[in-house]
Amino acid sequence: MNERLKQQMEFILEVDKLKKIGRQSYLSDASRKENDAEHSWHLALMAVLLSEYANENVDVLKVVTMVLIHDIVEIDAGDTYAYDAAGNESKRQREEAAADRIFNILPKEQAEKMRALWEEFEECNTSEARFARALDNVQPVMLNDATDGKAWREHEVELNQVQKRNEKTKTGSQELWEYVTNLFYENVKKGNIIDK
Amino acid sequence: MNERLKQQMEFILEVDKLKKIGRQSYLSDASRKENDAEHSWHLALMAVLLSEYANENVDVLKVVTMVLIHDIVEIDAGDTYAYDAAGNESKRQREEAAADRIFNILPKEQAEKMRALWEEFEECNTSEARFARALDNVQPVMLNDATDGKAWREHEVELNQVQKRNEKTKTGSQELWEYVTNLFYENVKKGNIIDK
Repeated sequence: MNERLKQQMEFILEVDKLKKIGRQSYLSDASRKENDAEHSWHLALMAVLLSEYANENVDVLKVVTMVLIHDIVEIDAGDTYAYDAAGNESKRQREEAAADRIFNILPKEQAEKMRALWEEFEECNTSEARFARALDNVQPVMLNDATDGKAWREHEVELNQVQKRNEKTKTGSQELWEYVTNLFYENVKKGNIIDK
Repeated sequence: MNERLKQQMEFILEVDKLKKIGRQSYLSDASRKENDAEHSWHLALMAVLLSEYANENVDVLKVVTMVLIHDIVEIDAGDTYAYDAAGNESKRQREEAAADRIFNILPKEQAEKMRALWEEFEECNTSEARFARALDNVQPVMLNDATDGKAWREHEVELNQVQKRNEKTKTGSQELWEYVTNLFYENVKKGNIIDK
């Protein structure tokens, strides 16, 4: 096998581990929590189906690629729950080290391209990154709402926390921001989100 | 919320069920079998990273979209193991009914587009469908090889079966066909695939 394909297949096999990285969101039937690979699949499909709601023109393939790889660093760094303050302090350093190791399994120019896409997602300064971030924030809200706020209730999440977590959603998609805003207020009414 | 976005979000929530549809392939650490959502994520990433190996020019976003939705019908129809002859006889009918129900949750023009993409994948008559099919066939071979043929051994799979299952791989990608062919012979040598 040529060296290039060998490196690519090695990377593809390595990232199989994403299927073992757990998240805090429950599946819509509340039977178990989802993992990063499932979440990334969901976001990629949302990117395809909802791109009309991006505030700015987006390259859909770029958004899809971004969401497919955005959590790969968690293979080494683990998933840090959005509302875990201590975990989020060390998160950046752990994720940089993970990106160094994992993306570099790929052939050099592909490694650089994927790493740059991940950085772009993290920095959230382009139209694609803003829309990808909106999807990443909206999907767990959708699942939380579908499960009567199960993960929110378990973590005693407050309205200002979910609002802060979604503060960039509006910059990616006004329509999706309105969608989650409605869900927040409905779930405050149900007692699933705490409004102090 | 506008009716269009409502239908789209309803579809996106409905297909969350794909995370519960089990496949026969084990994860690379052999700890459990993968599900359709994880498999679809893996294929989408492969489509992005390996498109240079498609025999013909392909629209990568089209290939990605195809693999993201190619198993959605299994939410109703279930996963039919590649080497289950009886199951495969009734498969087409069950999947058509599933496609009628599930894709039609989407707004009409988007439903038609996704349904057509699924049909195109099934018929395997375009460059994108041939490459998508190659990925769909190669990914479980990769996982089987990584787990010392665990699923192959459990099902006592024969060389002519894996070759037949991959007969269209060559039409999508000569390089990926050579990659799986090598893996087949290595696994015959290890006794993971039966060569009568």
